[in-house]
Amino acid sequence: MKIKFADRMQSMKSSRIRELLKLTEQPDVISFAGGLPAPEHFPVEELKEITTKILDEKGAQALQYATTEGYLPLREIIAKRLTISGINLSPDNILITSGSQQGLDFSGKIFLNPGDKIICESPTYLGAINAFTAYQPQFIEVAMDEEGMIMEELEKTLADHPDAKFIYAIPDFQNPTGRTMNLERRKRLVELANQYQIPIIEDNPYGELRFIGERLPAIKHFDTEGLVVYLGTFSKTFCPGLRIGWVAAHEDLLQKYNMVKQSCDLHTSSNVQIQAAEFMTKYDLDEHIAKIKETYRTRRNLMVETMKKEFPANCKFTLPEGGLFTWVEFPEGVDAAEVLKKALEKKVAFVPGGDFFPNGDKHNYCRLNYSNASEANIVEGIKRLGQVLREM
Amino acid sequence: MKIKFADRMQSMKSSRIRELLKLTEQPDVISFAGGLPAPEHFPVEELKEITTKILDEKGAQALQYATTEGYLPLREIIAKRLTISGINLSPDNILITSGSQQGLDFSGKIFLNPGDKIICESPTYLGAINAFTAYQPQFIEVAMDEEGMIMEELEKTLADHPDAKFIYAIPDFQNPTGRTMNLERRKRLVELANQYQIPIIEDNPYGELRFIGERLPAIKHFDTEGLVVYLGTFSKTFCPGLRIGWVAAHEDLLQKYNMVKQSCDLHTSSNVQIQAAEFMTKYDLDEHIAKIKETYRTRRNLMVETMKKEFPANCKFTLPEGGLFTWVEFPEGVDAAEVLKKALEKKVAFVPGGDFFPNGDKHNYCRLNYSNASEANIVEGIKRLGQVLREM
Repeated sequence: MKIKFADRMQSMKSSRIRELLKLTEQPDVISFAGGLPAPEHFPVEELKEITTKILDEKGAQALQYATTEGYLPLREIIAKRLTISGINLSPDNILITSGSQQGLDFSGKIFLNPGDKIICESPTYLGAINAFTAYQPQFIEVAMDEEGMIMEELEKTLADHPDAKFIYAIPDFQNPTGRTMNLERRKRLVELANQYQIPIIEDNPYGELRFIGERLPAIKHFDTEGLVVYLGTFSKTFCPGLRIGWVAAHEDLLQKYNMVKQSCDLHTSSNVQIQAAEFMTKYDLDEHIAKIKETYRTRRNLMVETMKKEFPANCKFTLPEGGLFTWVEFPEGVDAAEVLKKALEKKVAFVPGGDFFPNGDKHNYCRLNYSNASEANIVEGIKRLGQVLREM
Repeated sequence: MKIKFADRMQSMKSSRIRELLKLTEQPDVISFAGGLPAPEHFPVEELKEITTKILDEKGAQALQYATTEGYLPLREIIAKRLTISGINLSPDNILITSGSQQGLDFSGKIFLNPGDKIICESPTYLGAINAFTAYQPQFIEVAMDEEGMIMEELEKTLADHPDAKFIYAIPDFQNPTGRTMNLERRKRLVELANQYQIPIIEDNPYGELRFIGERLPAIKHFDTEGLVVYLGTFSKTFCPGLRIGWVAAHEDLLQKYNMVKQSCDLHTSSNVQIQAAEFMTKYDLDEHIAKIKETYRTRRNLMVETMKKEFPANCKFTLPEGGLFTWVEFPEGVDAAEVLKKALEKKVAFVPGGDFFPNGDKHNYCRLNYSNASEANIVEGIKRLGQVLREM
């Protein structure tokens, strides 16, 4: 074959995490690698009842083609839920997507020409890096501290790159760091976006999973000029396997997302959208989320406490107030990929942090997931990891 | 807002069909506009049983994240079914997509730089035009007759444009024309693709819906060099609302599709994939398809017979041997968009043919769908349409 591919294919590569996930499917590996929710909280019995009811009452609708923008009752439920985060939008401002990953891909498609600049936290979500990379941008990374993206750094970055196409941010319990952007920075971020007239892509899959402290309003809450595109998902609060996310945005922007959705896959599964809407009508999603948070809080505490005991003192880590991840900083010079090799010998897996830096120059970090490991495995896995680190 | 979008957004527009579908949702409109399967054949009762069983037996798996390539038992079933069309591939050559529309978008993403040429039938599927347009290609149209794309025309086109990135073809009961490419042309098409080393995107959503004559092998059957990418779907043979399609291709090509899938939406809904696989394991899909075909045959015959009686003699139309559509040619100078305006006054809808020509220069055609109209509505709708045509 002497086929010529598009130029963009040269920069794309398969996600190392997804490749890792395959490795860690062996049952004797203790894996902190993925970002999987705890399956024991999936509402299996409730869904059995609901799917039967849907097929009885509106089977033809659930199995037929549907409109691109998505099932209206589901968009109404989402619009209502967004008020908890201080966002007031109509269902017409919402497009249902196949997970929030699709919202990331669409954002790249809508905004990016090859060579365009995008501004993001350093480090940032690997899935976003992969989605955007297909559109061949330059990633401009902005340093973070424990309070999220540093606004003084962002100011400098914007002054240097006023032509950036958008700012990508994960404000709550960021993937991979577990850090949360504080209130003042959220306000300032929107002020700066307004000043430069640059859209913000707010990726917020974890905001509802806060188990310590008070909920903060979304970045979108501070949006005065319709510049913030909010990406949401039920993957972490309900079930990822259904693949239901959404884009919430000003109508001028949402119209572009709708058009792109239409050309990409027509619409998200009607059946699955109706299932989500019925579940949230019949059951209390907040009650369901409360159970998930309780589990994650316990696992997070156990992981943090065990790391304190078992890791060498020169290893630092985030104390996340919600979400699924903590982020470990090894001493400079330690390569997390080397740590992983040794850890896999002891049947423990995690994701080395290097890939979360779009320009790929930092190697002494790793991401640990606690949402999908049993308490016994958290203690045992962290002990083994501590042993590896002390031996190195 | 002074936001700058990607250049590609200038060429994209919303599908007129999807906009039309909204119009025709009024219950008193007789619509031949969409491409909807007959919902009375959706296996609602069977799915009730299956969804309950899946949630009982593998609820956690059905609701959890899954691998990008798709549910292995479903890929095995698809690999086996493809042998009916003369295609012998392993499940590893198959990627599950969210409908075959997603396979079209991915094909654009994988092959097209702005300005690249693609060769297609004239007219061709509007959803493909929309999907590819996002990648800013030049469409080079090849004339068809009742036996499909004319190979002498394709030869000339390839000689003029040897740098074309791919050839896009819908061999069976093409959308919009209902025409089928004959056996000799399928062979010749692959010979030409080999000669120029140009991939063929074979879009085959309707092949299994043949109700007259003998099934022809797929274009992919003749593929000797791994140049044919086959796009399939269960939207027309099972349920479109589940959004299950697939890409079947040589491993070197499929690896690109897998990578793009991962960046676009991680994977297709696990639950929905397992449902499809369970249905096809427990029930006989061919038996199910036989019922659908019988209905479509009856409706097609009724539409054709009524057109013969009611349409002016200077209107020609395709006699499809399967699929969902017939294609009407009005006398030159008649604008189908004008016919539609008058038809809507009489509460009949269809899709004017102009949008199916990517370079948009032909206006005296229309596409009529018969799969989703009752027999009474077919007779009444075609009568009204005949009246409009005679009055013009």
